Formats: sequence, structure tokens, C-alpha cells
Amino acid sequence: MVNYQIDLNSDIGESFGPYTIGLDEEVLKVITSANIACGYHAGDHNTMYNTVRTAKANGVGIGAHPGLPDLQGFGRRHMRVDPEDVHHLVSYQIGALQAFCHVHDVEMNHVKAHGALYNMAATDAGIADAIARAVKDVDRRLILFGLSGSELTRAGKKHGLMTASEVFADRTYQLDGTLTPRSDEQAMINDPEQAVNQVLQMIFENHVTAVDGSTVAIEADTVCVHGDNPNALKFVEQLRGRLLEEGIDIRRVRE
Amino acid sequence: MVNYQIDLNSDIGESFGPYTIGLDEEVLKVITSANIACGYHAGDHNTMYNTVRTAKANGVGIGAHPGLPDLQGFGRRHMRVDPEDVHHLVSYQIGALQAFCHVHDVEMNHVKAHGALYNMAATDAGIADAIARAVKDVDRRLILFGLSGSELTRAGKKHGLMTASEVFADRTYQLDGTLTPRSDEQAMINDPEQAVNQVLQMIFENHVTAVDGSTVAIEADTVCVHGDNPNALKFVEQLRGRLLEEGIDIRRVRE
Amino acid sequence: MVNYQIDLNSDIGESFGPYTIGLDEEVLKVITSANIACGYHAGDHNTMYNTVRTAKANGVGIGAHPGLPDLQGFGRRHMRVDPEDVHHLVSYQIGALQAFCHVHDVEMNHVKAHGALYNMAATDAGIADAIARAVKDVDRRLILFGLSGSELTRAGKKHGLMTASEVFADRTYQLDGTLTPRSDEQAMINDPEQAVNQVLQMIFENHVTAVDGSTVAIEADTVCVHGDNPNALKFVEQLRGRLLEEGIDIRRVRE
Amino acid sequence: MVNYQIDLNSDIGESFGPYTIGLDEEVLKVITSANIACGYHAGDHNTMYNTVRTAKANGVGIGAHPGLPDLQGFGRRHMRVDPEDVHHLVSYQIGALQAFCHVHDVEMNHVKAHGALYNMAATDAGIADAIARAVKDVDRRLILFGLSGSELTRAGKKHGLMTASEVFADRTYQLDGTLTPRSDEQAMINDPEQAVNQVLQMIFENHVTAVDGSTVAIEADTVCVHGDNPNALKFVEQLRGRLLEEGIDIRRVRE
Repeated sequence: MVNYQIDLNSDIGESFGPYTIGLDEEVLKVITSANIACGYHAGDHNTMYNTVRTAKANGVGIGAHPGLPDLQGFGRRHMRVDPEDVHHLVSYQIGALQAFCHVHDVEMNHVKAHGALYNMAATDAGIADAIARAVKDVDRRLILFGLSGSELTRAGKKHGLMTASEVFADRTYQLDGTLTPRSDEQAMINDPEQAVNQVLQMIFENHVTAVDGSTVAIEADTVCVHGDNPNALKFVEQLRGRLLEEGIDIRRVRE
Repeated sequence: MVNYQIDLNSDIGESFGPYTIGLDEEVLKVITSANIACGYHAGDHNTMYNTVRTAKANGVGIGAHPGLPDLQGFGRRHMRVDPEDVHHLVSYQIGALQAFCHVHDVEMNHVKAHGALYNMAATDAGIADAIARAVKDVDRRLILFGLSGSELTRAGKKHGLMTASEVFADRTYQLDGTLTPRSDEQAMINDPEQAVNQVLQMIFENHVTAVDGSTVAIEADTVCVHGDNPNALKFVEQLRGRLLEEGIDIRRVRE
Repeated sequence: MVNYQIDLNSDIGESFGPYTIGLDEEVLKVITSANIACGYHAGDHNTMYNTVRTAKANGVGIGAHPGLPDLQGFGRRHMRVDPEDVHHLVSYQIGALQAFCHVHDVEMNHVKAHGALYNMAATDAGIADAIARAVKDVDRRLILFGLSGSELTRAGKKHGLMTASEVFADRTYQLDGTLTPRSDEQAMINDPEQAVNQVLQMIFENHVTAVDGSTVAIEADTVCVHGDNPNALKFVEQLRGRLLEEGIDIRRVRE
Repeated sequence: MVNYQIDLNSDIGESFGPYTIGLDEEVLKVITSANIACGYHAGDHNTMYNTVRTAKANGVGIGAHPGLPDLQGFGRRHMRVDPEDVHHLVSYQIGALQAFCHVHDVEMNHVKAHGALYNMAATDAGIADAIARAVKDVDRRLILFGLSGSELTRAGKKHGLMTASEVFADRTYQLDGTLTPRSDEQAMINDPEQAVNQVLQMIFENHVTAVDGSTVAIEADTVCVHGDNPNALKFVEQLRGRLLEEGIDIRRVRE
């Protein structure tokens, strides 16, 4: 008998100073891994302190979510950064979050790059290598999250890191295993039922049906979910329900 | 026979992006403890990476130098920050520097607050307590530097931290043991001979002559020196020479 | 027959990058003067562009709302800034907003300092003078808003500026005409009826009853109202209703 | 008889807070147009105040030098910004500098985009159009500087702006009129004599010899020179000498 398990991860801790976004309290109750912003693209030291505490209280795996130094653009704008810069900015942000793990006496679990940095690392081997080296250099016990089949998970394995292949419920895939860009009208899966089914296909069959109808191999260790609005939260509940019905354990990657 | 020893510390790693300041390479050859800026009042992740590497290569003790979030004002402007904010911003900055200590496989040695934060912590018990708690919470093995006789060293001791009492060669003292404010015309000691003698007095006699002629008790574990210009460096050479002549060991606090 | 008139002003345009706050669309329908954040304590160039456009469409007076360079603290934390720095940072922010007035072909109406800068300018003559000089130097036709009876309105008059004395509906006053600090439990007026009555007293009688029961002289040209939540908006509606019932014209100061 | 004239422009006012760069005082004595940083990629309100004053005192044309919001990268890193964002960030920065022109009672002369923004605008018609629209919208009397033959000067003309075609003394050109990228080993002209001759060729013959030996049409209204080190300054002196010997007037574009 095969035991299936999956991790549910979400980006949280993105509030900054007077600005609050995200339903962090609620989403922390339904996910197993939290990617916590570290002050470059979002978040600040006060938010990080509070978020690590709440994540710990919910038994959720705590991860650093390093991004580009672009608060105004929320780290979503591609910037031409060189690999050494990336190594150092990722190191910095992991360290900053580790401080709050020490403060709250909890182990850090993983690292997931944010936004444009995540996207660049999926296809740019130099950026991917820089991120993997930073994780290895700062704390080699951390799990590196990356898009399934990406340069990033490849770099993580090359450097001897534990990696987790991430899949998306609400995004379509292209023939090469990358996500269809948001600029494409087929990028999003808006039907919750279809999104759930895509996840189940990826977990049970290790592949996904790309937008052109072809079949693409996928590893599914963790699913990216969202908590920025009530509908997103409702979808996570629905997904959790179906996963449990199908006998899939929902637990963080390391366990 | 009494063995005297003293530590020489300096603020370094204050360059940011395209902006370079400080003769870091040179000053690292003559000091025993480096207070490295952590990105809030100065410094950035690239500077931190390079500075930790160079400090390690010179066998200098590596310290975090957390400051207020005020790059434009170089962390020198008082800001009304509450203690919880201070706890979190100090934690964040210590963690960020620790990442680079992990990267370069070197132990961090100490923490010294910067600028306005240092000054506030000298007399404000709430700020002092917040800094000491941050050090204890993030890594209780770190030595907390603070002005001799200040609220900060008091808070460090209260929280069971190893502390180092800092003295100044080029600043005069007031009756209550605080530094004469820079706005006062008697604030600075410009004569190198007099500055050296003040240090020797503090090391050998554990007191200093205040501006009003009275004698103030002082503990002298570490002397703050500067490396921002050639004259400052020359003074450090001169001070080192006299300290060695007097049979005083120059070594970092922990040793 | 005396004609009474009053201006209603509110702080808007405080969203930044991905972060949205304030019910700007709604509040612009019920106020006559908009204080638009200029990128230092809140706001950014995109928000400013959109806010000036919407303010113009609603016929609302457009004002610059310069603040301290402290996005994380929302400009609410006192910083020790010197008057020349204040002159330059206020000049900068007025100019930045003027650009968007040129873009949308609308005249700028006024300047109101934000948060800690506003509070410092109420009692610190040097800061007040710096702000007034900045307004005069950049565009002497702008109206300077300041707390009624403050150093700021005094400085504005000294420099030959048109000034508007601001009063608060939901804050209590002290014997010296300053607002009771928020840390005091009597600081806020939570009863809408009492708040409205305080405004009417200030408009009709040119004085207010301070927390100690004494009577304090007040000039009331403009009332500060808020639009950050539905209750605040509801209060503005209520206040408008009573003002109109009492025959008071609601119009911007210049008119 | 043909009268030749040329403008010499340089980027200045790039100091920030405690960080000083550039020999601004010296370079202002040998140029005719100053491109002043506006606080996004470099500069701050204090530097801007001082720089406008010194530029005015030297009779140098004052220009805004808007850049990407990237202080750490000095605005040299390409960022994926959309045209509306560019329109607004250029508007903002022009306005901020205009404030200091009002303060010092001097007319602003021109706008030159900085770094990555300048480079993107040379070949990206959407970015170029956004910059030109911002100049037109904020103050249509400003001269738009752009690389000779670029999308930016084209956009400026399309929007009815006065434009100035910029050439480089120390950079080689490619067949299509763009600069050879700095990553190419032929990018720089290190021989001052050759650099001067290239400028003379561009002024007198309206063309330049590209790296492949071909001849490329060029308009030369203004030459970009540098003042960040003594050698750069020396080259400007040398260039000025030769230009004057050749009977070429050195004066700002508008005159």
C-alpha cells in the first residue's frame, strides 16, 4: 500500500509598518508550511516576531521567504541581480528570520524564494545556484522549496540539500513544466473543482496536463495556497477536504 | 602582579550600495573587535559578506552593530521607538549578521548598539532592557557592549549576559559618567597625548577625570576607536604603541 | 448677519505599493480639502497620480501632506531633525505633489504637515519656521494648515502666508490649546454627538472647553476628519448634516 | 560660416545622507548642464538643495536626473517597470527638483533619465514614450536629453518637446548607433586623445566610426562627461581645451 502525503504552503507575514495584508491568523490554521516575508519585499521585524510566534503556536513549519529588495514592487518585478548579490541577500534574510526562531525557541524548517526571485531561479541556473548555496552556507538542514522540475530544485540537490518540489493548484502548466505566464489568458484555473483535480493528478500520477494537452512529469511535495482573501481561504478548506477524503496525509515536508 | 588587558573596537562595514566609507581594510589590522553595520543605519548584505570575511581573516572579533532604521540619518537621530520595536529590530539585525558568520564559518563575538540607539540605551532603562533581552533571546553567548556605568551594561548583567564596559579616548566625561554631548565645546579631546592618557587612567585607575574636575568611577574593558580617516588610524597606532609600552595586552574581551 | 463657513480636511493617498489603506474614494465625496501623502511617511508616485486625479474629479482642494522619512513608523515617531533638514524635506515633498497637479492640470491648494512633524511644529518654533519657509520658498500661494494657536500658524503668518487654523472633532484640548496626548485616557471624544458639539462650539464661539473645564480660545477654519474606516466616514456624514442644519457653509478655505 | 556649439553635461548631486561621492564642486566649474539626482537612485533633499544652489552659482543648466527606485543598485539594475509606473516616477522626481529650483529662484533646464532607465528608454518605445509624456505633462519647456538616435529623443520629438541628442566621448558605438555594452571589451575608449577625436568627429561630421568600422549617423548636442575622480576631471579640461581650440562654443543647449 502506498502512503500519499502532501504539504500545503502559503506566503504570510507580508504586513509592513502601518500596512496590514493577508488573513494570516486564519491561513495558519489550514496550512502546514508558512513562508514568512523577511523585510525586503514585504514584512518587517515586528511582523516577523509576531508571525513566527503564531506559526509556532499552530504547529506550522516555519520558512524564510526571501525576496528582492523592492518593497514598492512587492518583489514581483524582475531586477537584473547578479548571483553573488543573490547569495548575500538570501543569506541575510534567512539569518534575520532565524533570529526570531531563536527568540521563540523553534526550529526553522525551509526556505522558499519569493516572487520574481522564485521565477528567475526556476530557469536561471546561476540564480538558482546562488540561492541553494546561501541555504547550504547558512544552515544546511533547511529544506529548499522550488518549482517542480526547476533549476532551483536541481541546484538544491546538487548542493546536497533536502528539496521540496512545489506545485500550483490554480495555475496551468506549459509543455516544459513551467507555469503559464500570468499575462496569458489561460494562466489561471478559476474553477475550484478543476484546481483540486489538478492537484490530485499531480499527487497520484506524478504528471499534469499542460495547456497544449500534453502530459508533463511533475513531483508534488508541497502545494502553494493563498490566504489573502476569504475565497482563497475557502478554496484551501475545499482542497483539504478532498485530500483527506482521498486518504492523503496533509503534513509538512520534513515529517 | 596584575595583568592588564584591553580591547579596541571600531565601527566598520558602513558602506552601502555604491557608497563607500571608512578605511575598513586598514582599521581591521589594528583593532580586536569589529562592530559591523547590519543594514538599518548603514551597510548592506554585500558589505556584510565582505566585512565578515575580512574581519575573520584578521582574527578580529565579529560583532553586530544594530542601529535605528534610518539610513539617511545614519542612525544618529533619536527616534521615539518603543522597547518592543527595539527588541525586534535588534534581534533582526543580529540574525542577519549571524547568517554571514555561518557563511564564513566563524563565531560571532558581541553586540554593540549604534548611534542614537546606543545613546538612548545608556540612560533609558526600557530601551536598555529591550536590547539586552534581544541579545539573550537570539544568542546568550554574545557579549553585550555598553557605555561604562550605563543602563545598558546594567541590563546585560541583569539578564545574565557577559558585558563589556566601553570607554572613549577622544570624548570627555561628565560628573554622572555619561559623555559630554557633542554640542558642548568641551566634548572632544583633540590632543592625542591627552586622549591616550585618559585611556591609561581608565585602565590603571578605574576612573576618569570629568570636565568639572571630579573623579568618576569607570570600568574599561574596551576602547572605541575610529577608522574613518587617516588621522584616526594614526591615533589608533599611537594608542596601541603606548598600551604595549605600558605592558597592557591588547586582545578581544572574551579571551 | 454673520456667515459661517468651515472646511473639512482629511489625510488620504496613504497607500503604498501593494498596500492599500483608507477609503479614499468615499472620503473624497464628503470633504473639501485632501491632504495627500507624498512618499516619505506613506504614499508613492502611483498613489499620488491617482489620488490627485480623483481629488480633482471631486472638486476637492489638493494639499501636500509632507511627513518624516519613516515609512515603517508612518511618520508618527518623533525624530530629532534639524530645521534645515525639515525645510528641505518639506520642499521636496511639496514639489513632488506639484508635479502631479501639473500632470492633471489642477492648482495645489494647501500644505499640512503630517504626524510627528505636525505635532513638533505645533510647539517647536524652529521646526514651524522651517515648514513655513519651505511653503513660502516653493509656492507662496499655498495655504499653510496648522493647529489652531500653534507655532506653525504663527510662523506662517510671520512669513506672509495664508494660514488655516485646524481643529479636531474627536480630540480633547488642554489648557494651553494643545491636544491632550493620545496616551492620556481623556484624549479621545468617542461620542459622535459630543464631537459634533465641540466643532459647533469652536465655529460659533471661537473657543473650546478644555479637559480641566477652562475655556480656551480657538480659531476654526478647517476640521480634521478621517476616512480610514466606515465608522469614521459615518461620523463625517453626521457632522456634515449638523453643520448644514446650522447654516454653516462647508467649503474649502480659500473660497 | 558655420557656428559649432556643444553642451557638456554631467551627473551630480549623488551623495546621500552620510555618504559623499563625486567631485561636484569641481565638475560644476567645467560643465554647462548638471543632471541632478532626485532621491530615487541617489541624492536626497539636502543634497538637492545644496546642489541646485551651487549649480546656479556656477551658471550651469539645472536638470532633473530621474532614476529607478533602487538606491542600493544606484539605479543601474534593469527592473521590469511598466510605462505608467515610469511616467509617474519621472513626474515625481522632476517635481521634487523643481521645488528646489523655486527655492533658489532658478529655472529648470532639462531632464535626463539615469542609468538603467536611460538605457531602457533608448530602445524601448513604451518606456521612452512614458518619460517624454512625463516631461510634457509636468513642464513642456524642459529639454529632454536622450541618446542620439534613440527611441527617447524620437518620443520627445513626437510629443513636441525640445530634445538634445547626447553623445559619449569614452564609449564606442555599435552599427545600430547604440553604445557597445560595458560587458564587451571594446566598450570603453581609454585613450583621451581618441576620445576627444571621437567627439570632434561627431560634432563636425555628424557621424561616428562604429566598432565594426562602419560609419553611423550621429547628432551631437551634448557630451556626457564625468566628475567622479580626478582623472575624469582632467579629461574634461582636456576636452574643453580642444573644443575651444577648434572654435566650438561650449554652452548649454537652450542658448
